[in-house]
Formats: sequence, C-alpha cells, structure tokens
Amino acid sequence: MWVAAAAGQLQVDKAEEPVSGDMGRAELNLADDEQLLLAVAYVSDAQYNRNIQFETSPQAVRFYKLYNHWSTQGITYFFILVDLFLGLFEEPAVYLLPLWLTLLDMIVYLALAQNGYPAVRWSRVLRPLFCVNFTESRQLRRAFRNIRNTLPEITYVFVLFMFSVAVFSLMALKLFAKRKLSTGEGAPYFSNYLDVFFNLYVLVTTANSPDVMMPAYEVSWAYSIFFIVFVIVNTYVFMSLFLAVVYNDYKKHLKNEVRKLVYMKHRKMIEAFNILKTKNGAEFVVPHSRWRQLVKLVAADIPSSHRELLWRVLDDEQKGYLGRESFIGLADLLNIQIVQMKDRVHPLEKCMPRVYRSTISKLICRMVAHRAFRYTYDVIIIINAIFIAGDEMNPLITKAEWAFLTLYLIEILLKLYAHEPRAFFAKFQFWNWFDTIIIVAALLGTIANTALKSSGGYSSQQILDIVFILRVLRLIRIIDSFHRFRVLLNTLVNLIPTMLTYAGLLVVVYYIFAVVGMEAFKGRIHFYGVNSSNPAAAYCGNPALKGSQFAALKYCRNNFNNLPSAIVLLIELTVVNQWHVLATGFVMVTHLTARIFFVVFHIVVVIILINIFIAFVLEAFFVEHSLARSAVETAIEKKIQELGMGDSVDHPVGSLVEVMETSENDLGNSDNSNLKSRLRFRIASIRYKTVDALLQHMFEGELKPEDEIPTLEEIDNLTPDDFPQKPQTFDNVT
Amino acid sequence: MWVAAAAGQLQVDKAEEPVSGDMGRAELNLADDEQLLLAVAYVSDAQYNRNIQFETSPQAVRFYKLYNHWSTQGITYFFILVDLFLGLFEEPAVYLLPLWLTLLDMIVYLALAQNGYPAVRWSRVLRPLFCVNFTESRQLRRAFRNIRNTLPEITYVFVLFMFSVAVFSLMALKLFAKRKLSTGEGAPYFSNYLDVFFNLYVLVTTANSPDVMMPAYEVSWAYSIFFIVFVIVNTYVFMSLFLAVVYNDYKKHLKNEVRKLVYMKHRKMIEAFNILKTKNGAEFVVPHSRWRQLVKLVAADIPSSHRELLWRVLDDEQKGYLGRESFIGLADLLNIQIVQMKDRVHPLEKCMPRVYRSTISKLICRMVAHRAFRYTYDVIIIINAIFIAGDEMNPLITKAEWAFLTLYLIEILLKLYAHEPRAFFAKFQFWNWFDTIIIVAALLGTIANTALKSSGGYSSQQILDIVFILRVLRLIRIIDSFHRFRVLLNTLVNLIPTMLTYAGLLVVVYYIFAVVGMEAFKGRIHFYGVNSSNPAAAYCGNPALKGSQFAALKYCRNNFNNLPSAIVLLIELTVVNQWHVLATGFVMVTHLTARIFFVVFHIVVVIILINIFIAFVLEAFFVEHSLARSAVETAIEKKIQELGMGDSVDHPVGSLVEVMETSENDLGNSDNSNLKSRLRFRIASIRYKTVDALLQHMFEGELKPEDEIPTLEEIDNLTPDDFPQKPQTFDNVT
Repeated sequence: MWVAAAAGQLQVDKAEEPVSGDMGRAELNLADDEQLLLAVAYVSDAQYNRNIQFETSPQAVRFYKLYNHWSTQGITYFFILVDLFLGLFEEPAVYLLPLWLTLLDMIVYLALAQNGYPAVRWSRVLRPLFCVNFTESRQLRRAFRNIRNTLPEITYVFVLFMFSVAVFSLMALKLFAKRKLSTGEGAPYFSNYLDVFFNLYVLVTTANSPDVMMPAYEVSWAYSIFFIVFVIVNTYVFMSLFLAVVYNDYKKHLKNEVRKLVYMKHRKMIEAFNILKTKNGAEFVVPHSRWRQLVKLVAADIPSSHRELLWRVLDDEQKGYLGRESFIGLADLLNIQIVQMKDRVHPLEKCMPRVYRSTISKLICRMVAHRAFRYTYDVIIIINAIFIAGDEMNPLITKAEWAFLTLYLIEILLKLYAHEPRAFFAKFQFWNWFDTIIIVAALLGTIANTALKSSGGYSSQQILDIVFILRVLRLIRIIDSFHRFRVLLNTLVNLIPTMLTYAGLLVVVYYIFAVVGMEAFKGRIHFYGVNSSNPAAAYCGNPALKGSQFAALKYCRNNFNNLPSAIVLLIELTVVNQWHVLATGFVMVTHLTARIFFVVFHIVVVIILINIFIAFVLEAFFVEHSLARSAVETAIEKKIQELGMGDSVDHPVGSLVEVMETSENDLGNSDNSNLKSRLRFRIASIRYKTVDALLQHMFEGELKPEDEIPTLEEIDNLTPDDFPQKPQTFDNVT
Repeated sequence: MWVAAAAGQLQVDKAEEPVSGDMGRAELNLADDEQLLLAVAYVSDAQYNRNIQFETSPQAVRFYKLYNHWSTQGITYFFILVDLFLGLFEEPAVYLLPLWLTLLDMIVYLALAQNGYPAVRWSRVLRPLFCVNFTESRQLRRAFRNIRNTLPEITYVFVLFMFSVAVFSLMALKLFAKRKLSTGEGAPYFSNYLDVFFNLYVLVTTANSPDVMMPAYEVSWAYSIFFIVFVIVNTYVFMSLFLAVVYNDYKKHLKNEVRKLVYMKHRKMIEAFNILKTKNGAEFVVPHSRWRQLVKLVAADIPSSHRELLWRVLDDEQKGYLGRESFIGLADLLNIQIVQMKDRVHPLEKCMPRVYRSTISKLICRMVAHRAFRYTYDVIIIINAIFIAGDEMNPLITKAEWAFLTLYLIEILLKLYAHEPRAFFAKFQFWNWFDTIIIVAALLGTIANTALKSSGGYSSQQILDIVFILRVLRLIRIIDSFHRFRVLLNTLVNLIPTMLTYAGLLVVVYYIFAVVGMEAFKGRIHFYGVNSSNPAAAYCGNPALKGSQFAALKYCRNNFNNLPSAIVLLIELTVVNQWHVLATGFVMVTHLTARIFFVVFHIVVVIILINIFIAFVLEAFFVEHSLARSAVETAIEKKIQELGMGDSVDHPVGSLVEVMETSENDLGNSDNSNLKSRLRFRIASIRYKTVDALLQHMFEGELKPEDEIPTLEEIDNLTPDDFPQKPQTFDNVT
C-alpha cells in the first residue's frame, strides 16, 4: 500500500500541471501501473456490484478481467443454453436424437438402461441450477437466497392455512357426509375426509367453484354460507396474508441484501482510494490526474468531456483533488447514463445544401413535424384496423393492404427526410425502431407470400400467420399518440429488465418441474392428433381415463411426453383454472405421485413464486411511477445546470423524435468556457439496466450512510435485524 | 370567547389548590358551563374525527350531543337494517309478505302495476346508499370518495388493457378463423370478432383456461405460445398493474384524507383551546383544573388516576398548565386505551381463605399454571379430533363425546378456580371467552339433541349441524398453544375492524347489483328442487337453456329469483371461476342485458374493489406486523415507566390469562407517591377500534407538523398534490 501512497506522493505536484503529459510516465512506472490496475479492478467491481473477493495480486486481477470479458461470458451462456435445450432431444423428446449426443450422465443412464436397470436420471433435474451458480446471474442467485430466507415465515402461515382447511374439511364432512348427496357427475359428495380435504383445497384455488357447492346449495340456501365463509377465510384472507407476508419478508431480506451491496461498494471504493491516495496537508486525497487515469481505464468508452463533467460533480468546490467521501461517489456516478447532445447536420443537407434548404424542403419538414401529420396517420391506422378485420381473401382487401404498406413506408421515409437518421435510430427511440421493423418485416412477408402464391398456387401457412401478426401489431402504434398511454407503456417497458430476472427464476423452476414430471408421467397419456379415428383417442390411450372429465374435456394434449408439452401444462397449472381436472386426470393414472406433484407445484409456484413476482412488480412500479430521480442523478443534473450545459429544449418523455445520442468521438480536454459553448448534456431517461440499480434506488432513502462501514466479513453476516430502527417520539409528530 | 377567557382567568389561581372543591362552582357558572360544553363538543369531535361543522350555539351543541347519543344512533341503524332487509320480502322474494308492508315507493309501484303499467322500481337500487350518507359510516363514505378519486387513473389503465385484449382478439381471429376448428362442445371456434373478444376477456379472468386454448393447441404446439403470451400480458402484467395503480393512487388519496383529518383535529383542538385559554404572563395556557373539568365531561368513564396520568404526559415539565401544542395532544391521548392493573383477590379466597390458601388448593393452582396442564389438554384436543372424524352414530363415540365435554368443563372450572373470574373474563381475553362459549353452547346443544332423540326418536338436523360445527370449532384452540400462530392470529383479529369497513362497502355494492339483477332476471331461471321429476328441471324451466353448459352443470339454483340467491350468485361471480358458464346461461336467456350486467359487475367488483381490498389488507398488515407503537403510545409508555408505574411482569402478547382489566371504580385523586404504590398501568394491545386510528398510524411518519394549520375551508380543498415533496439531494445519501 505504501507503494501506491509513495507513487501518489510523486504525482501530487503534477495535479496542477497540464494534463496531457503525465499519462505516459505513469504507464512506464510498472509497480505503479499494477497498483492502478488493482484500483481499476476495485472500482469496476464496485460499479457493477460484483462480489468477487480476489487476491490482490496483479495476476489475479488479469484473470478476473479475462473472466469478465464478454467472449468468456458468451461461451458460458452458450453452454448453459445447450445444457437446457438437451431436454428437447432426450427421451421423452420432440425429436429423438441419438443418445450419444448428450453428456456423461446420459452415458451412465445408457449403461444402466442397457443392462436392464430401471434408472431415473436425477441429474437432469439439477441441470437448470447451473444458471443459479453462474456469476452473471447474481440477481437470480439473490432471488433464490431471498426466497430461502423468506421460507420460514411463510411456513408458519402455510401451516395455519392448512390447519384452517383441515378444520373446515372436518366441518364439511360432519355436515354433508350423512346426507348421501351426489355431485353433478353422480359421484358421492363429500363422502370421506381425504376427498373433502382435496376438494376444499381445490376450492382455495377457486378452480372448482361453484360446482363443489352446488349439491349442498340445492338442498338448502343456508349451506352456501359455509362455502362463502370458507372462500372468504381461505381464498381471500389467507391468500392476501400470503402475499403480505411474502411481500413484507421478501422486502426485508432484499433491503438487507441491498445494504450489503452498498457497504461492499463503499468498502471497495475505500480500498481503491487507499491505493491511489496521496497526502495533502493533514488529509489523504486523490489528485485529478490520478483520478483521470483511473476513469480512463475503468470506463474507456466515455468521452473526455463527459469525464470532466463527472469530475466537476465530485470536486464540487474545484479543489483539484478528491477526499475519501467524494471519491466513493464515483461508483454511482459511473452508472448514470449521461447523454451528450449535439445538433447533427442532416446528410442530405451536407450533400445538396441548396435543395435541402429550399422552401419546398422546409415545408416538407414542417409538415412532418406538424401534429396534423400524426393525426392523419392515426386515422389511417384506424381505417387499417377495419380492413384487417375483413376477409383477407377479398381482392379489394389485398389491394388495400399494399396501399397501407406504401403509406406507412412513405411515413418512415418522410420522417427520415425531416430528421437526422442517426438521431431517428438512436438507442432510446423505441417507437421508431418498432415502426421500421414492423413495416419492413410486413413488406418482406407480404412479398414472400405473394411470390409463393403466384408460383406454387398455395402460400405457406407459417408466413401468412406471421404476416397477420405483423399487421395487427402495427395497430399498437396508436398508443404512442396519447400521452397518458405512452407514459404507462414506458413504465411497463422500463420494468421489463427487472421482470426478466424473475422470469429467469421461473424458467429454472418450471424446467425442474417439467423434467420431474417427464420422468414420472411420460407416455401415460397419449394424444392421437385432431379428429383421430383411433378408439383409444377417446380416453387418451389409457384405460384408466375412461369416462373421466379429463378425457371428456379433450385434455389429452396436456401431457408430459416432451419438454414443450410439459412446460405448457405447467403454465396451465399456474393459471390454476381446471387445475383439479388436470390433476385428477394424472391422479387416475399414477395415484399418489401425481397428487404430491401437483400440490407441491401449486404451493411452490402459485403460492410462493407468483406472490413474490407480484410483490416485486408492485414495488418496482411504485418506484418507476413516482418518476423520482435518484440522489446521484439529481446531483449530476444540478451540476449540469450550474455549468450552463443543460438541455434548454424540454423534450417530452419518450416523444417520437428526441434529438439525443451518445457521442463516440472524444472531444479532448477543454477548459470550462470551451466546454460550455460546445456541449449539451442530459441524463438519459431512467431505465434500469440492472436490477441492482433499481433496488438501490428503492431503498436509497432508508439506507443512511453510517460513518463506520463494516469489514467484508461483517458485511457477509449482516441480518435484517441489524438495521437501525427509527425511534419514534412524541415530539416529531404533534 | 372573552367569556371563556375571563372565566379561565378566575380559575387560574385555583390550579394549585386541592382539586376536589372547584368542580361544583364551575358547574354553577352557566355562561362558563355553556362555553365548556362547546369545548367538550370540539374535543370529542376531534377525538373521534367527526366532521360536523356545527354552529357555535349551545342549542346546536345539545342537538349534536343528542344526535350522537347511542339511542338515536341505534334507531337509525335499525331503520337502515329494516330498509335493507325489505329486499327479502319484496317480489321476487323468499317469503312473500303483503305488499303494504313496504314503503312509499312500493305504493307507487303498486299503483302503477295495478293499472297495468310495467314498472321497474329504481328506487330500490338506491336504498343501500342510505348507509353511505349516514354520519357514522364516515369510513364508508371516505372509501367511496377515494374510489371516485382513483377512477380517472384506473380508466387509463383500463382503456389500455381493453385495447390490448382487442388487438389480441384481432390476431386470434386472423390466426384461427380460417381453420374452421371446433370447440370441445362442437361449436365453431373463434369464428367472429365479438365471440373472440368475449372469449379472450374471459381468459383474462382465467375462467375458461385451458379449454379456450385446446382446439388450437391440438393443431399445433406453436399456437400455445399465443395464449401463453396473452395470459402473461393481460392476466399477470395488466392485473398486477391494476393492483399497483389502484394501490398507489388509493394510498395517495387516502393519505390526503388522513392529512385533512389531522388538520381538522388540530383546528378543533385549537378552537377548544381558545375557549378555555387563560393568560399566563406572555402566553395563553389552560390550567390543570379547567383541563380536568373538560376531560371529566369528554371522557366520563375513565378513572381519575388514568386522567392524572394523561395530565402528566401532556404537562411533561410539571408546570401546572398546558400550552397550545400540549393541549392539542389530548385528542390523540384519549384514543389510546390504557389499562389499569390490579391484583384482585379471588372471591373464594375472600369467602373461605383457609381452604383456598391450603396446600392442596395451592397445588391445584400451580398445576393449572404448569405447562404440562396445557400440553395435556392439547393431547386431549388431538384425540378429540380423531373421535370427531369418526361415525357419530357409533355409541362409543357418543359416549366419548360426553367424556370430552366433561373434560373441557373441568378445564374451565379449574382455570376459574386458579384465576380471578373477572380477570379471566376481561375484555381482551379472547380465548377464554371463545372456550367458554363454545363448550357451554356445545353442552346445551348436545343436551337438547339427546332430549329430542329420546323423546321424538329423531333429532332436529339444524341442532345437530350446529353441534357438529361447535365440536369442530373446539379444535381451533390448539392454535393458542403455539406462540407463532397466536401472533399471526392476533394480527388477523386486529385487522377485522378495518376489513369490516370494506366489507360494508362491498355489501352496498352487492346489494345494488343484486337488486338490479333481480329486476332484470327474476323468474327467468327456475330451480325445481333436488331430484325433481319435472322435465323442465333439465333446462331450468327455460327452453332457451336446453343443451346449454349452464343446465348440464346443474346451475339452476344460481338465479336472481330472491335476494339471498342473488347475493350467492354474485359471490360466485366474484370468485370468477366458471364465470363464463354463469354469464352465458343468462346471456342465452336475456342477451345483451346479461352481457353488460356481468361484465360491469366483473369490472367494478373484481378489478376495482377486490384490488382495493387487497391493497388495504396489505398496507394494514404491514403496519400491524411491524408491531411499532404509534408516537403517542410511545410517549405514554415512557411516562408510565418514568413514574415507575409500569408493568414489571412481562406478559406474553395475548397469553391465556393476563392479569389486566379496566377498573370501574374511581380511586380519587392521589399524589405522586400514592399513585406510584397502588397502581400499575399498561397500554392495551394495539387494536384499532376505528379505521381512522389505523390510517393515522400508517401515515404518521409522513405527516410532518406544519406550523401553519390551514383553515377549515382550506382543509376541505386540499388535494394530494398539495403534499410537500421530500427533496432529494446528493448529500443525504452518499
């Protein structure tokens, strides 16, 4: 550490020197360079909230850099995908490939199977867990850890809930068993305890309401009270309680995780500070030059003007060096997306300035920008909707479709004429991208379809289906014309990354259940195709299902015979309706196994995971909807305004064409006045690229900075109870 | 006002005098008395958050007192109940009473009906609105107002959601209409747009999953993707979004309402303060004696020791008078339930001290208090559960039932022997009350049943049913033995009052829909009784239903022929399952009317009200579960501890026998040391008697006291946007 301090000492004098000179010298100093690399590793670790606690040797740092390189990551992702898609090709399979294609566990299975041992391949079940143990899937791992931590609390509610169902079942048995009623299908009604319990558990899912009540309700109106009380207590109150407990507990643990992350980030930034620090009077500081070296290595892709802006934000009082507290702020600052704006010259203006600046050309530009232009196209979309609903075999409609496609193409071309193309297709221009892709794809599809039709006489159904979907999707554009809808939609779009994390979690769980289900139920239920003449089709090829509701409702396609079917079936079970019919079908075939499998799936997915999903969407929505910027963002914005580099034009959020982009060319260092005259900055619309950023934003207000940041070991052992409780007093209210 | 001030001036000297003398004199002073009455009205208004803005004349105050008297309130409640129950006796009715029994609108209807005019009695629909306009139903009115305020925001989401369903419907039409598929019942599948739209709207409720997907899924696995995407977007994301928007907006408006309440309370307390105030040096104050008079009139039922405790809390520095700020605190203080505890002597100890204090007697008491005693009864309950599940016609089980009843009786008697009866049956001893009532009722029921059996040979089914239910309910007691379950159950029990407010709201809405439904659909669907031989029973007496799923599933009992049936049907619709079967049944009979009615009911109840209910339960649960005491409670507790009058024994929350009660006998004034030696106080477990208290507790932290309290008119016009926004800065985070 003293090396860094000493090296820093050497450099402190140069902080006031012109900046360009000292970079090469710093790179020549090898010991210093390695220290700098270490600091870079710490800072980028802090920036991305990575949790690697590496050895402080330069080799380890280089290894770490390699590990985090996109190509390494890409290869790992690829192998995980391959691993997961193996499920498609193994027995039971969609396309049965030779068995030697799969991995080691497959060979073992093969050896066992060949020698006549009946083998269940448990290893397949564990396959998706690879995702969880993968470094980049931090969020997934954290979600799993949180669920594990939340489980004890849920268990208590769950036991109480099961007890409640058990007591109601006993009551139902006592009330109805003696009456010898029969269900709609003629089976005895509530005749034994297990039967009653299962029926009432299904009623909690609401899947058999009101059928389960009807026999008793027909006898007397008063019996309906029993079922109404049951539904209120178990479906509404207990399920809300589940949501509440899950929400409460999950949030508590999440907050603890976020706090750990923040501490960890501070701790790492302090390590980096200690490496780079140099003595300035009584305090340790990091000089500007040293800081610039660091940022250049940490974030090589940001332009120097942007870097200087960050420096201004941190070095608020223009002292030329940073103290420890200011230095720590860098990790958060690097995560804010700052957009540098420039008025670009339209390529046409460059090529033929006279034509582009002519009156007619200007008129076209003004026309495109006019709101009447937008309204016209809204009307066209509505007329198009009517045509889409019509019969597409009608030649008039086919011709109209070509007309509409042409109109939409003209719109895009006009917009490209009026707006600078690179601005039009900038990163955040969601609607422009959407429009162009939909129209171009529809154009290609329609052409392909027409070509096929005129050549072969009949068009491919797949292409036609895709063309239809593209046509309908075009209508979505109308949302963009209403401000309120646009805001709502933007909120939804911004939530997608965070939702995807939980979708990932669900994929892992569905995959595990699908594989288990395939092992347990493969081949038990057969689907013979639509309108099959095979007599076995009436009972799904399994005599046990003769006369069952499962077969009567034609559910034979809902089976575990291959991975896609299994996933679809599991999604149907998640939606819960007809849950008991699906479950009973499998119970008739495999008895206890199916009963356990379906109930466990319901508890894990519907009661726990879906509730966590809802809780997370709710919380994320509140944060998104409040539109509050984070503290760091506010600080940057303030500084941008102070420096007079703010965006004077008020762009509506998500408007069709926003003149903003990230600049790739570095403008080099420039003094304040220069910076001021040439550049405009603006913070990109709040879009959380990582769940971490959203989480931190969520709990920002509650995470007070303690002076004492715990050590790394202490951070690992933090529990939600370690949170400082806000003391309430009489005085701070009345 | 000067009268009060002058009167106060007269009394200020007496503040230090012994307290007992001045009361009579104050009551003699008539002008003063009326001013005091006015202050009392203000304070009790503030205490209960009433919003009456009465004239400041003594007559008005007396009128107001009369209006708020329990008997007046009782009469009004009675008439509202009568009004609501009229629905039972009017046509369509359960018991058809002579028509002259009902009110004026009935006569008008009668006159019209007699003269051959077909009349729809719209006035009935408005009947439940009486509840809403009734003063005591403040919470109900507020809930209605909040929902009205939340509607605009929901409307945007709703339109977007409907647009999404419409676009998906168009896609489905394009994908499936050409294929000429058929549903499980042989009907054409997705053949016209309205049909597709209705089916997909039903899929949002999940009621027709997976049936609606099966025909397409049978053709190709790929089509299931369409339905999966539909369910994810519309059922999961949009429904979560509804919950989020409702939650967010509802909370915002609720917060505004609570803030108004708090301001109103402060404003009223200031009015009361201005009436009672007296000049003390530079500042206006209320002296102790005056304050005591006020509290005696406002809360006549609290003992004087308790009153003195409140004074100590307010007059923290023992100055003998209260400033404005301290005086305002009174309204909140009065709402905290403080329990005065005393060690009561057991009546048996009084009657025969020698026997009660004997070694055997003490041994019994120790036995009852021992945990083994509780465990023994837990085991007995479990054995009892097994016996209950058995066949009750078995003579062994009948005998066992007597044995169990005896055992439970012995338990209660033993406990009454060991504990002081008044403490055992104190207000908050939920489980003791529960046990005793269940056992005594079961005993009476069993005796009545046995008597009937031995005399008439056959017992009444009703009595038997009740006895069965009581027997099963007994098992619930076992929850009490597990600490975690007890805590959860207490949380639930504490939420009941707040849930009831929303239940009231739901009753109003259900009643309106039930009456509308009765007017629209009465007599259209008939139920002929169980196993009726009438051939019309197969199609519910309406030829339009021949061959329908409604008739096939034996849903004839689900009709609008009388109020109870209508309510049960509406609850079934709330549960959502088989929603489309029920709706389609009525659509077959009355076409468009039914379609509109069922969809409107779904939107109002399932999408809006149930979400608000869940939002409120969640929020209330978080407050309850945090177990944080409110600021006022903390202040009282602190004072109790300071005065050394705290409860030294640590009672577990909700334990079976807590030695606490509210004392009825006033112990008179006593000085500090005296008070200290004789009394023990403790704050009753947090149980919100009013929703207001809970709401205030919820938003307490966010309602910062402004120095400037708005005037009454300003308070009425406050909007959520008037809330001061917390500014975020860089400094308060990093």
